[in-house]
Parts: sequence; C-alpha cells; structure tokens
Amino acid sequence: MLRLYDFWESGNCYKVRLVLAQLGIDYERVAVDILKGESRTADYLEKNPNGRVPLLEWPNGRTLAESNAIIWHLATDTPLLPNDDWHRAKALEWLGFEQYSHEPYIAVLRFWHFAGQLDDHRDEIDAKTERGHAALAVMENHLAENAYFVGDRYSIADIALYAYTHVAEEGGFDLSRYPAISAWLERVAAQPDHVRIDAGRPEGH
Amino acid sequence: MLRLYDFWESGNCYKVRLVLAQLGIDYERVAVDILKGESRTADYLEKNPNGRVPLLEWPNGRTLAESNAIIWHLATDTPLLPNDDWHRAKALEWLGFEQYSHEPYIAVLRFWHFAGQLDDHRDEIDAKTERGHAALAVMENHLAENAYFVGDRYSIADIALYAYTHVAEEGGFDLSRYPAISAWLERVAAQPDHVRIDAGRPEGH
Repeated sequence: MLRLYDFWESGNCYKVRLVLAQLGIDYERVAVDILKGESRTADYLEKNPNGRVPLLEWPNGRTLAESNAIIWHLATDTPLLPNDDWHRAKALEWLGFEQYSHEPYIAVLRFWHFAGQLDDHRDEIDAKTERGHAALAVMENHLAENAYFVGDRYSIADIALYAYTHVAEEGGFDLSRYPAISAWLERVAAQPDHVRIDAGRPEGH
Repeated sequence: MLRLYDFWESGNCYKVRLVLAQLGIDYERVAVDILKGESRTADYLEKNPNGRVPLLEWPNGRTLAESNAIIWHLATDTPLLPNDDWHRAKALEWLGFEQYSHEPYIAVLRFWHFAGQLDDHRDEIDAKTERGHAALAVMENHLAENAYFVGDRYSIADIALYAYTHVAEEGGFDLSRYPAISAWLERVAAQPDHVRIDAGRPEGH
C-alpha cells in the first residue's frame, strides 16, 4: 500500500490527500509534525533529503517528493490530467505559478499565523500580503472568463491552487474581494469525492 | 516562428534558450528589460498576466509562461525528457525543487547583487545564503552518486538546475565547496549544442 508522509495543516499535503481520495487510491498516512522537527530527523532525511512533506512512498521503497510532482504522477492517465500536450503544458504553467507566485505568500502567511511566528516576521508581512493579492488577482482575472484553470474542466491545476486558496483567509486574505475565485472554490468543493483539508483528522490533532 | 520574451541575465530565460538551442529550434528573441519595468507594461501583461519572463509565443498567438513548463513542453518526445512515467515524475520533482528550494535563494541573491539591491535586503541575506547552501547540499549528495539528476542521463532536470547553479558565485556562493556539483557543471557544459548564458548577447547589453 502507498504510504503518505503527511502534515494535516499543510496545503501541499492536502493536494495529495485530495487527489488520492478522488482517484479512490488507498494509502497509509504517516504523521510528520514539521513544527516538532520531524521532517528533519536523520531517518526522514534518508527518505527525503530536502526535508519536506508531502512524500509518497511505494511498497518497493521508491519515494517521490514535491506536491505538484506527486499529484501529476498520480493523475497521469486519469481524468484529473488533460491528455493532450498543450493542455498538459498549461497545467504545468499553473502548477509553476502556484509554487512560485502563490504559495510563498499565501501559504507562508497562513503558516506564520498558526505557528505563532508572525512577530518574527513583522517586517515581511506587508510585502508578502501584497504579493499574495497579486497572485489572487491573476487567478480572479482567469476565473472571470473560465470555469476552471485548464481546458474548461476540473484538473490537478485546480487542486493545486485550491489547496492554499480556500484557506487563504487564515493568512489574513479577504476572499470576498474575489467573486470569481469564490464561485470557483464552490465548484471545486462540489466535485465528486471531494474531501476537506481536515477530513479524517482526529480531534485534537 | 516562435517568439521568446527574454531577459539576458535571467537563468529562467536561459533554461529556455538552452533547450531551444539543443533541440535546434529557431526563434525570435524579444528583449524585455525587467529592471526597467518592461514585464509590467499593459501590453506585456496582456500576454502574461503574471508579469514575468520568460514567455514563449507561438505564431497562432498561444503563449506559455513559467520556465519549467516551457522546457517540459519543448522537450516532450525528445531525448531531453525521459519517456517513462516514473522518470518523468522524478524530473518534475527536481523541477519543483529548483523553483521552490533553490531559485528563491540562489537566483534571488544573484539578482540583488547585479541589480544593486543588496542594501535593501541586508537583513535577509544570511537566511537566504543558508537556504541556498542547503539546496546545494541536496544537489551535492545526489551528484556524489549520480552523473545526472534523472535516470542517469542528461535531461531538462539538469538544465533547470544548471541555469542558476553555474552562476551561483555571482550571488556569493563558493562552489569549490561542492566537488560533485563542480564536476556535473562541466558535464553539462560539455553536452552537444550547449550554449552559454551570454551566447548571442551583444556587447553592452
């Protein structure tokens, strides 16, 4: 059985949980508390030298890191990834946008909030907030004219962007300013076999 | 003919120029000086709403942004991208590593140097330098046991990582500390049809 090294609060991990759920793939969840340094132990670094979650491990010992690489691989030859080269390229473009122009602002501000690290980063908050809104504006403009990010249908591009956008308010972003994003968030949440970011999470964890 | 919106100093743009050269694809280069705000004009934002280079434009008007998406698309069905799903997934893993754990430190420090912005970011230099070295250490460990990043052969994973690693010293990173990286840099530069980051650049530009 597949094994997912996972941290509940991580949107990057949630992307993988959502894809696994929508593809009906069983897996064993291994909790890695990044706040307690569990992604930097010698044992964990043996599996992922870059010391990050998520990490997916196959029964034969193969491992794959980087959330967008994992969901791309899982979605290959399924309805969650377009099967023509051009739409695949556009999906990769949005995955790149998510990891470079969206996550470092929207996810990081949320992380500082819940990890109690806002005071350590007081000087960086305004710039990160501004760049986060710039990313949301790019999404809003696209979604004002398109129901989904690639090829007019739900795909891993939507999943990658949904993961941290739907909890952006936890990082101080007011999503009511973005009506097209808000409508898209509802369309994504209404997809068959959708699971919430806290689905399966025990009380107190 | 393809049209590449390009900035000479950008390693992200260089990735695309290198892939185009190695695949023997002709293109027209359109200079976009990001230091003069040319990637944020209304005309440019019409082409790439995210306001970044590189951007590749096809004769039919289609555009593709995000360096790693562009080189993936160009390399599909060529020797520069593995043709089995597992090695493609590992290539994507390294592309994700490059954009998330490498570029924001190694490329950004180099940019601050040449754009004269070091003083504006004095407080961030140590942390960025430390994280850049962490990325180099991950690469060094991999290259101590492997000639290339994926499947024991040269691919776009090497190109993506070469782009900013080979000029990391311009951002203050001493590469002599990394013998396996240094040997790999030479292997990459020795590939057929390799071009340097400044190939074709007119004097004074």
